[in-house]
Amino acid sequence: MGCIVMKFGGTSVGTTEKILNVAKRILDEKKRGHEVVVVVSAMGKTTDELLSLANEITHEPSKREMDMLLSTGEQITISLLSLAIMQLGGEAISYTGWQAGILTESVHRNARIIDIDRTKVERQLKEGKVVIVAGFQGVDQYGEITTLGRGGSDTTAVALASALSAERCDIYTDVDGIYTSDPRSVKTARKLSEIAYDEMLELAHLGAGVLHPRSVEFAKNYDVPLVVRSSMSAEEGTMIKEEVQMENNLIVRGVAFESDIVRITVTYEVPFNGSLAKIFTTLANHHIDVDIIVQSIMDGITPSVSFSIKKEDFAETIRILNSEKEVLGYTDADFEVGLSKVSIVGSGMVSNPGVAARMFDRLRQEGIPIKMVSTSEIKVSVVVPQSEMLQAANALHDEYGLSPEDAEVSL
Amino acid sequence: MGCIVMKFGGTSVGTTEKILNVAKRILDEKKRGHEVVVVVSAMGKTTDELLSLANEITHEPSKREMDMLLSTGEQITISLLSLAIMQLGGEAISYTGWQAGILTESVHRNARIIDIDRTKVERQLKEGKVVIVAGFQGVDQYGEITTLGRGGSDTTAVALASALSAERCDIYTDVDGIYTSDPRSVKTARKLSEIAYDEMLELAHLGAGVLHPRSVEFAKNYDVPLVVRSSMSAEEGTMIKEEVQMENNLIVRGVAFESDIVRITVTYEVPFNGSLAKIFTTLANHHIDVDIIVQSIMDGITPSVSFSIKKEDFAETIRILNSEKEVLGYTDADFEVGLSKVSIVGSGMVSNPGVAARMFDRLRQEGIPIKMVSTSEIKVSVVVPQSEMLQAANALHDEYGLSPEDAEVSL
Repeated sequence: MGCIVMKFGGTSVGTTEKILNVAKRILDEKKRGHEVVVVVSAMGKTTDELLSLANEITHEPSKREMDMLLSTGEQITISLLSLAIMQLGGEAISYTGWQAGILTESVHRNARIIDIDRTKVERQLKEGKVVIVAGFQGVDQYGEITTLGRGGSDTTAVALASALSAERCDIYTDVDGIYTSDPRSVKTARKLSEIAYDEMLELAHLGAGVLHPRSVEFAKNYDVPLVVRSSMSAEEGTMIKEEVQMENNLIVRGVAFESDIVRITVTYEVPFNGSLAKIFTTLANHHIDVDIIVQSIMDGITPSVSFSIKKEDFAETIRILNSEKEVLGYTDADFEVGLSKVSIVGSGMVSNPGVAARMFDRLRQEGIPIKMVSTSEIKVSVVVPQSEMLQAANALHDEYGLSPEDAEVSL
Repeated sequence: MGCIVMKFGGTSVGTTEKILNVAKRILDEKKRGHEVVVVVSAMGKTTDELLSLANEITHEPSKREMDMLLSTGEQITISLLSLAIMQLGGEAISYTGWQAGILTESVHRNARIIDIDRTKVERQLKEGKVVIVAGFQGVDQYGEITTLGRGGSDTTAVALASALSAERCDIYTDVDGIYTSDPRSVKTARKLSEIAYDEMLELAHLGAGVLHPRSVEFAKNYDVPLVVRSSMSAEEGTMIKEEVQMENNLIVRGVAFESDIVRITVTYEVPFNGSLAKIFTTLANHHIDVDIIVQSIMDGITPSVSFSIKKEDFAETIRILNSEKEVLGYTDADFEVGLSKVSIVGSGMVSNPGVAARMFDRLRQEGIPIKMVSTSEIKVSVVVPQSEMLQAANALHDEYGLSPEDAEVSL
């Protein structure tokens, strides 16, 4: 049997008791005959505690020193987990990012992995040890400690799995897999046994929140099968891979939704040249995250562009639009708050025309107005009133046969 | 002006407020024109917290993993101190042990420094930055993180001072210097402005407790002037160096004392060959710290050896002596508890005969019985009843003119 990479997040290793549980799981996997590499994050609250210490000193911390500070979090976890495995009779060795050969760009707080020197890790695996690697961190060519930013430990796990040609990379989380929709709001939502990278990417971007898009991209690029599963139960999780069996002939694999969306519409008196680039460049410079952009220019109609932003960026966006009005060259700006976004995702859409039409029709039947539409190869998103978000999500979940009974029927 | 190394211990950097104070002191030194390298320990309770986490997992932790765990403590401090210096307008950069080029033996928890690659530190000093190095830790030739054991941060500071040919190494502590005796028990004790390495070594071994003997030895071997001073006040400290001005013609520089000593006497029926080696090897193997050893063989008198141990090792020592009685080949073991050790230290003794005689005479006048005696070139220790320890210390402090008025008189 080959090598597998197991990744445990901060809540899974939040206490020494949980660390001992994780150690047990690791040894179970080892007993099945696998070579096991484990990637861990900092213990539950460690990162927050370190951040608050830094915050007591300065509000504008050097990124380099923050990497120095925060990288201690995973280093604590790897040593404790290694001790726990030994306590349970296993053999283990822990490595920091730099020891594990994780070379990154010379960028702090958001570095990308450039290369992995797997010499040390492979030598220890050959000796039968469980190798425990600190997630989220690496080292640049100058010997500076770097961190990978959000979702960093997932990325470390996937990168190691790729470098070691691992059979798969198991991501242990506090959920037991990827669902057709959020089970808290859509009662008939069910767990998927498989999902394609691209579908997962769209769901991740849409706020399904289990995996950081970066690690899914990485897994896709290097063709590493990912499994999302619970660290609390032995249940099978959801496998994310390239070719997905079209289980139950589902065209749509999931319904995602996101609240607190604001639509901004900017109107121009004359057709604009370059204004479109100018407005979104300005917003990007101010770190405003623009999601959907809709623009249509027709003869005889006042040219305008609409885009959606998150509610927390609303005040700042309005401030920028007002102060930069002359530079941006628009005549009028309008907005609508209290909106939400509902999306359907599925790679089956590509070969099934009419999926979007069916979505619009169902929403019309439900009496839900559509404010904006955005489509990709495997996703259709609509902006609808927030008050009708859950109704829309449930209706679409039903429409595309994602609920268990439907699923059975369509077999 | 040259380079100086400043070392701050765990209590000096115990809170972020204290770290900001330390940063201020460092910048003051920088403004005087020095190149400044700073060595810091882990924040106050960090090490204890990390130890207790490990303890929750195992009672027999791997030394390698403990080094991995504990070395995070200093890494947290260096980054916070670096942030604090920047916050106050200075320029700083922090380095872990491995980044600072501190190469050690391949031993965990008690490694010795083999070499220091000063390239990085010197480059940063040239750029005008304060360089902050994690004390207590290094890296071996295989890239494994090691720690230096007790007094480790002091050793790091002295080793760096030596490698960088620093003018001096300032050790900031919670005391403001080295005293002629413990001021809590000897009211007339006063601070020394200078003391020789060897005198400090004897005092350190005698439990003056301010500096670890290892760092003093290191400083002596590489001729690094050390200054012990308070991190709380701006007062001058005590300089430890090779040649000491014989201030006030003092023959004895200090009086040290230690309570809770037990005397063990082992008697043999026949003159023994190798038994002496056997008994102390056995005790050493059980980590029993034997201090004074007194032996005299005279015709017609039962051969015996007496030695002193600490009270906390008493039960274990008796257990070992009993269980190994046949192997050790002795006939009888006797002990006396409730003892203490009082020592006078001073390099002036070497050229002043009769220092010990004067000590014994004064103790006789005080009516204090002497149970054991041990002498070195610059030290005389006596074991006396614990109830008379402080009387003996005060009397000797007075006898050798260490109190302020005496000092003035002898000018």
